[in-house]
Amino acid sequence: MKARPTRIALTLGDPAGIGPEIVQKALLRPGHWQNAELLVVGPEACRPADLLDGWQGVPGYAGFLATEGPTQWSLGKAQAACGAAALAALRTAAQLAQSGQADALVTAPVCKEALHMAGEHVEGQTELLGRWDQAERCEMIGISGDLRVMLHTRHIGLKDALAAISTDGIEAQLHLFHETLQNIGIEAPRLALAGLNPHAGEGGLFGDEEARLLEPALERVRAAGLAVDGPCPPDSVFLQGHMGRYDGILALYHDQAFIPLKLLSAGRGLTLLAGLSYLRVSPVHGTAFDIAGQGIADENNLLAALGAATHWGARRAGLLPAE
Amino acid sequence: MKARPTRIALTLGDPAGIGPEIVQKALLRPGHWQNAELLVVGPEACRPADLLDGWQGVPGYAGFLATEGPTQWSLGKAQAACGAAALAALRTAAQLAQSGQADALVTAPVCKEALHMAGEHVEGQTELLGRWDQAERCEMIGISGDLRVMLHTRHIGLKDALAAISTDGIEAQLHLFHETLQNIGIEAPRLALAGLNPHAGEGGLFGDEEARLLEPALERVRAAGLAVDGPCPPDSVFLQGHMGRYDGILALYHDQAFIPLKLLSAGRGLTLLAGLSYLRVSPVHGTAFDIAGQGIADENNLLAALGAATHWGARRAGLLPAE
Repeated sequence: MKARPTRIALTLGDPAGIGPEIVQKALLRPGHWQNAELLVVGPEACRPADLLDGWQGVPGYAGFLATEGPTQWSLGKAQAACGAAALAALRTAAQLAQSGQADALVTAPVCKEALHMAGEHVEGQTELLGRWDQAERCEMIGISGDLRVMLHTRHIGLKDALAAISTDGIEAQLHLFHETLQNIGIEAPRLALAGLNPHAGEGGLFGDEEARLLEPALERVRAAGLAVDGPCPPDSVFLQGHMGRYDGILALYHDQAFIPLKLLSAGRGLTLLAGLSYLRVSPVHGTAFDIAGQGIADENNLLAALGAATHWGARRAGLLPAE
Repeated sequence: MKARPTRIALTLGDPAGIGPEIVQKALLRPGHWQNAELLVVGPEACRPADLLDGWQGVPGYAGFLATEGPTQWSLGKAQAACGAAALAALRTAAQLAQSGQADALVTAPVCKEALHMAGEHVEGQTELLGRWDQAERCEMIGISGDLRVMLHTRHIGLKDALAAISTDGIEAQLHLFHETLQNIGIEAPRLALAGLNPHAGEGGLFGDEEARLLEPALERVRAAGLAVDGPCPPDSVFLQGHMGRYDGILALYHDQAFIPLKLLSAGRGLTLLAGLSYLRVSPVHGTAFDIAGQGIADENNLLAALGAATHWGARRAGLLPAE
């Protein structure tokens, strides 16, 4: 069935962070991304050192694509030249994925402050990729093992997150979640919507948001044929997702999603971006400036992202059958 | 060092629920409460059947103390007679603990509705025990392995929980938490206070509750000599507690506590009541009316509660040295 490897464009991220180090370490463990072909994208000065010394022979290493970048910089701090280099690599790698030359984009971390110094005043890579791809709606799905969680709100105060709950938004997100899971090979996704209040309000005893905002969205998506349970008690639905009862759970605020995701990730957390025309996966951590250049960065999150991208990319490209 | 076993008064809970069944099953697995002596308290009609047939020989079984109760009832539903029986057993067992005749009280679950039908319009056992013991402040601590979480608010809507955050309340709870952990043998408890907002507000970027309500409480308890970290990012502090970095974490709302507690409990969840003059431990689940009488109830939560009560009861009674 499988005719060719999954082609992955892999960026190095911010040169001042741990990106180049974890990419180099990941290239030395090709068993984790078997059946993939990696094209590494970033500045020449970050070209993985071992690869220069005859490592072109690593099975699955498709080579290095040099993009604009500095020749000198300081490790562990935000710099305009590093932000610009991260942007250039991301732009090039995203184009490879958008044009179909790559089956998937995997990105090492960037520094928001450095992007700002380089003139791009964005929240992060998600916003840039969505804009470049002209995506109508772009949503992050956090993944730890079998637990996949999309977030209704992210970096806003909890009080504001409560005020931002929107029936229309939930409806649109559940549709996007459903399609995204189908795209990675889950033919009939089983979704759940987390409630907001203790025990999902226990029939209206604690808070009215379930009846007022969540139920109407559920009625609409069910009428459209989606299988969505909810509103589910928040203190048990993530455990159920972890146990495999749901393929995806929509959470209403940052910590409702990240408390369970971080507890379960154990250094293997990754994110999947929903709403792009192509597949994009990334490790869950940041640039870790505090340990950059020390050789102690952990490449396991990136390896998990590469493994998932290999598998899902093959599914999307029709190289593997659906589940 | 150990001169005598830890004496535990164990109630049967609501006769219509799984209480009598899990107590009977727990009595047949005495290895889990080694070094304890169990006095079972409840209505005569619920006396563990196997014990009538010559099981008085189980090591550590101190006998059965019959309290008022019905001779007939229906399994799996709330009834006034069952509520009254649960109340009578709880009252008697609590008196044994309060008077020092028992070193600890362990309770099987009761049904709130049945208590109401019996004339006690309370939230549950916690409220009754606090009232009978004339406790100034009574707080539940949820425990899963090494993770111990006290709750600032419980069964109210999330919007109301945000409005209920009180600097004075947090200060009082942190002191009570510290004392309670010392009472079970942790001489110098390391506490943490969870933040409310994503990343604990990230320096005021998302929400002002950390600076306005939490920091002032932390300043006061630190000035009083307590070791309390915080406000901590909610998405990592429970993982840190699980890994042993903290002895106790104060959570601000129901799901902030119960999402991690339920993920980590794996059928071994228990609660410890802080603020009573004696030690009270209980399994975390309810009466499970849906499976009452089927013989399939899981006694492991109760066994975990009995094991903890044995250990902590010995500590409190000076039968074991502190950690």
